[in-house]
Amino acid sequence: MATKAHDERECRVSFKVIDGGVTAAKGFRASAVTCGIKNPEATRLDLALIVSDGPTTTDAVFTTNKVRAACVRVSQQHIKESDTRAIIANSGNANACTGVQGIQDAKAMTKAVAEQLGVKMRQVLVCSTGIIGMPMPIERVIVKVPDAVAKLKPDGSEDAMRAIMTSDTRPKTFAVDVPCGKGSFRIGGIAKGAGMICPNMATMLCFITTDAKIGKDELHRSMRYAVEKSFNCITIDGDTSTNDTVIVMSNGQSDAPTIKKNSPEAELFRCALHKVMLELAKMIVCDGERVTKFVEIRVRNARTLADARKVAETVAKSLLVKCSFHGCDPNWGRIIHAVGYSGARIREELIDIYFGGLQACKGGLATKTPVAEMEKVVQEPKFTVTIDLNLGTSGYTVYTSDLSEEYVDFNSAEYSAAIHAKRQKGFA
Amino acid sequence: MATKAHDERECRVSFKVIDGGVTAAKGFRASAVTCGIKNPEATRLDLALIVSDGPTTTDAVFTTNKVRAACVRVSQQHIKESDTRAIIANSGNANACTGVQGIQDAKAMTKAVAEQLGVKMRQVLVCSTGIIGMPMPIERVIVKVPDAVAKLKPDGSEDAMRAIMTSDTRPKTFAVDVPCGKGSFRIGGIAKGAGMICPNMATMLCFITTDAKIGKDELHRSMRYAVEKSFNCITIDGDTSTNDTVIVMSNGQSDAPTIKKNSPEAELFRCALHKVMLELAKMIVCDGERVTKFVEIRVRNARTLADARKVAETVAKSLLVKCSFHGCDPNWGRIIHAVGYSGARIREELIDIYFGGLQACKGGLATKTPVAEMEKVVQEPKFTVTIDLNLGTSGYTVYTSDLSEEYVDFNSAEYSAAIHAKRQKGFA
Repeated sequence: MATKAHDERECRVSFKVIDGGVTAAKGFRASAVTCGIKNPEATRLDLALIVSDGPTTTDAVFTTNKVRAACVRVSQQHIKESDTRAIIANSGNANACTGVQGIQDAKAMTKAVAEQLGVKMRQVLVCSTGIIGMPMPIERVIVKVPDAVAKLKPDGSEDAMRAIMTSDTRPKTFAVDVPCGKGSFRIGGIAKGAGMICPNMATMLCFITTDAKIGKDELHRSMRYAVEKSFNCITIDGDTSTNDTVIVMSNGQSDAPTIKKNSPEAELFRCALHKVMLELAKMIVCDGERVTKFVEIRVRNARTLADARKVAETVAKSLLVKCSFHGCDPNWGRIIHAVGYSGARIREELIDIYFGGLQACKGGLATKTPVAEMEKVVQEPKFTVTIDLNLGTSGYTVYTSDLSEEYVDFNSAEYSAAIHAKRQKGFA
Repeated sequence: MATKAHDERECRVSFKVIDGGVTAAKGFRASAVTCGIKNPEATRLDLALIVSDGPTTTDAVFTTNKVRAACVRVSQQHIKESDTRAIIANSGNANACTGVQGIQDAKAMTKAVAEQLGVKMRQVLVCSTGIIGMPMPIERVIVKVPDAVAKLKPDGSEDAMRAIMTSDTRPKTFAVDVPCGKGSFRIGGIAKGAGMICPNMATMLCFITTDAKIGKDELHRSMRYAVEKSFNCITIDGDTSTNDTVIVMSNGQSDAPTIKKNSPEAELFRCALHKVMLELAKMIVCDGERVTKFVEIRVRNARTLADARKVAETVAKSLLVKCSFHGCDPNWGRIIHAVGYSGARIREELIDIYFGGLQACKGGLATKTPVAEMEKVVQEPKFTVTIDLNLGTSGYTVYTSDLSEEYVDFNSAEYSAAIHAKRQKGFA
């Protein structure tokens, strides 16, 4: 579930969508190797490395979960103390609930990368995703770091992306080239998500690089703006995983002019960064575990932005609403029910609800719109539900998905079986 | 999901469990008839009537959902204006989101009953449960009211209970006989629930009668106490349906002494009322739609009661936790993850987690308890998860269930199909 820019004010930037993901910007290289973190015999990529060839300005947003993975603790410390040159990230083990040993392991990963790159430990950030509460098989990781460094290449984004995937079924990558002054800058990134039925489901990692020339303060401002309007509703109200991390590295190697505070270039950068994050956030929703529907929940004319958000998020999270999406049922009763307990100020007799362009409910009552017509909307893999509260002028939009039997099956049976198999092999 | 008495202070009352449900107490009669509310051809009971043969003191708790059914609005008005003699309740149609016509229909139901019983309209309360947003087929209801009155009998509880069931699969009835002074009083009730995966799922109705002699203020105090510690966590934080209602009618016809404020008898009554509500609340959880597990989530040693409650409710609501219960997976990682985003004050390194008596997590880290042993606990249809925060002295317990593929299937496919069929027949 991800939030779209509050509808009122969309950015209008002209840019070109390009390939290259996290290595689209100048001066960045990436690679991936196979460590067998989850399973020593496996052959899939599970360790990614992203490196800037020169100094960077870097900003990051970490989970608000009070149970924080060891890698999050170490990265938070490193980014506070130093500039950043590299990100090392693994899948297969979250290095969460792993105590002192987990911290040592996360540090060991940054140390191994630093030694190979000839930088300082604190110039390396570390991210992990996978199972919670099991020790990281650190030897299997460390031994492959030289290999990862050797494989670094300017088109290594695809490999890095594959290495951080867990239950993701599709790659998530997006990059843009933005004309600016007499030159242009690039912003590109990769992400992993999945488990999107509810914001608390799974680790979300996103690594973005840019060759724009931008200072720490302006990058920070742009980052907060873009995260709030893209990923932040994947992690609504603190419902974040133990490992969630978004990192933006900027190395200033483009030929575009330096981005100054309150300049048109700053607006351009902010909007372009938002665009990249929003596209990646949408990909995360679409690739939620066993998701078959992508639904935009638009709330209009709420008393306040906070009210609009409460309604959008409550409807988007309602299991009964999600089940009805899955069943292709234009069930506005379940929607108005969720509106009623959202905590927002509402007046039942003013509420209008639409499926696509068809009005299902007017003034809190059923319309005469034929159900068969509305069913056609809900049968589509992507559609919009609009809830007009007719009370004020504030709007908010949330992206959500359906809830499928396959999701439950996946999270109760297959997944559990895999964990059991692993545990029985002596990991815990 | 229902809350147990805050563990600290359990009531100890000696009483006898008896049959008779909502007609166990002296001077109450009940009945049910078939109106074909959901489907004119159906033969199931769908209209219940509960009547006191003499005047009563009555108290009620209604939904906090801002979208309130017409019947709720009418009953709230009636109970404010008058004493109560009867409850009329139907299944098959919620009479919610039905506008002015809905209010007229709810009033018509109370009028029909009042005329037949020779009481005032405002002495009759009305409750509905079923689909939202469709007009009540009021003629089919009204015509059967004389029949319902004619069928009233002192052992009519079973019929009344069956008439209010929707997706419930099991009857929910409980009654006690409580020795008091030289006599005894009785408290008994019936309930409907289901859809218990999350508190926002379905209407909860509960009708309780007693022949205790109790004044309005003391009944109100006992009612608030008992609801808070039983049903109130079915309807956590305003996540109530449009129709939720709990009604307690007391007619004073027992031979037990009058219950006075702060007396031992008041304590006795309060505890017995709580017992009846708690048993009915547990039955609702156990009978949640497609539930296969009944799990008690006990939180201990939180900093405050509010913190204990946040943790218990967050864990009990987590879809990933519920999926792991369904998969018989003792997955403490998902539990500690939910603890982390609950909003409660916690210290990861102090958290202990147990499945039954087996410790899975100590100080935020995995224990050496064999997974196979913990699996045996989680394979049981009923078990306890204990979360010790080791931070304070407050505790809270919530009852919850698993999440099954069948739940999703039920709520996306079968249920929707039934609604469609009905709508296509010209109801909306």
